[in-house]
Amino acid sequence: MEEIALENHIVKQFDEELDEIRALLMAMGGMVAQQLQDSIQSIVKVDSGLADSVIERDKRVDEMELEIDEACLTIIARRQPAATDLRLVMMVSKAVNDLERIGDEAKKIAKQAILLSEQEKPWGFTEVRHLGKGALSILNNALDAFARFDTEAALRTFNQDQQIDLDYQTALRESVTYMMEDPTSISRVINILWVIRSLERVGDHAKNLCEQIVFVVRGTDIRHQAVFDDTH
Amino acid sequence: MEEIALENHIVKQFDEELDEIRALLMAMGGMVAQQLQDSIQSIVKVDSGLADSVIERDKRVDEMELEIDEACLTIIARRQPAATDLRLVMMVSKAVNDLERIGDEAKKIAKQAILLSEQEKPWGFTEVRHLGKGALSILNNALDAFARFDTEAALRTFNQDQQIDLDYQTALRESVTYMMEDPTSISRVINILWVIRSLERVGDHAKNLCEQIVFVVRGTDIRHQAVFDDTH
Repeated sequence: MEEIALENHIVKQFDEELDEIRALLMAMGGMVAQQLQDSIQSIVKVDSGLADSVIERDKRVDEMELEIDEACLTIIARRQPAATDLRLVMMVSKAVNDLERIGDEAKKIAKQAILLSEQEKPWGFTEVRHLGKGALSILNNALDAFARFDTEAALRTFNQDQQIDLDYQTALRESVTYMMEDPTSISRVINILWVIRSLERVGDHAKNLCEQIVFVVRGTDIRHQAVFDDTH
Repeated sequence: MEEIALENHIVKQFDEELDEIRALLMAMGGMVAQQLQDSIQSIVKVDSGLADSVIERDKRVDEMELEIDEACLTIIARRQPAATDLRLVMMVSKAVNDLERIGDEAKKIAKQAILLSEQEKPWGFTEVRHLGKGALSILNNALDAFARFDTEAALRTFNQDQQIDLDYQTALRESVTYMMEDPTSISRVINILWVIRSLERVGDHAKNLCEQIVFVVRGTDIRHQAVFDDTH
């Protein structure tokens, strides 16, 4: 009886530790989503002050990645988890990497916002607003799916990336047309090009998060597949 | 005595498994370096056939990522490694991710090579050749440092990324100038822009590999620092 009680105690402690890294990951996800939103706003509202604060706060995102990685290493070393629990820890370690990269993209967008705020004749804000909305939506949906470990939501969100890719292609074509019509705009429009490219990459990272959810819950690996049909 | 013999046996088996995933990672690294080299060649030599083969072979790179990840999970679950060994396994798992992303950049470059092969008046090949040389060099140096677990070489290679970033900025400025002088070239030069951006990202991923080597060997985390002075 004592042994069982002890085992339960250890299992309970382990669950608490797992919950803790999940909570840390969700906190990091929330922070990154805010960073992305602010970076898009800093472009659309030509707000270089907001852009500065995004760049400043990126350090905190980087710190969180290291903290969570450290927590994952500790949990593996101390608890030696197997099967699903191990997959969860490994997945958290991959997921923080994607979140950190989304944070990086937000920082890159903020840097372009500062460059753009110094220029006249802004162009491309409609495109950034539209693509930005899509990128924020896929990220928030991925984080929601993660919070509930909902594979159906994850698969639906995974497929959402296709629309972002289409919107990205459209914005790219419009940018080229605009530059050809007004070559003096080229340097400025290239700033916008990097922004829409960053937003497209946010979609890719959100897609990775969705893959990781399915990987943990189902134990199958859906990376390197384009689209899923089994969402209904 | 028997117990020690058994333990030695297990330790030896574990070492063999670790060596195996290291060997797999090096094999993947060699494949990815070849992919990068071929993708650069496909641009510079306007060889869409070579570009096709890069795109085709990327599937094999993706498969290798999954295989090595699976091997890492198995080794953690079965051997429950601690301290340095655990860091090694975690690091391999991160490193394959960077290698896979370098493979992705090679595929993206190959796709641009196909688009460029359909156009007249090629421009930007000098820039691609120059930046490509830098990207290949940092990748090969990172893989060499990895093969020998050489932290000094890793730190030296880490700093090499600065030069790539400078070359990237130069190529970017030249591209803008070229487009302004000849607006009919815009669409074509944007193809080149994506290529030089991909090459710059290869430098970032190679830098990540170097960080991971130091992380494993020294147990310190050097991510999110710009440059290291302790190379000598």
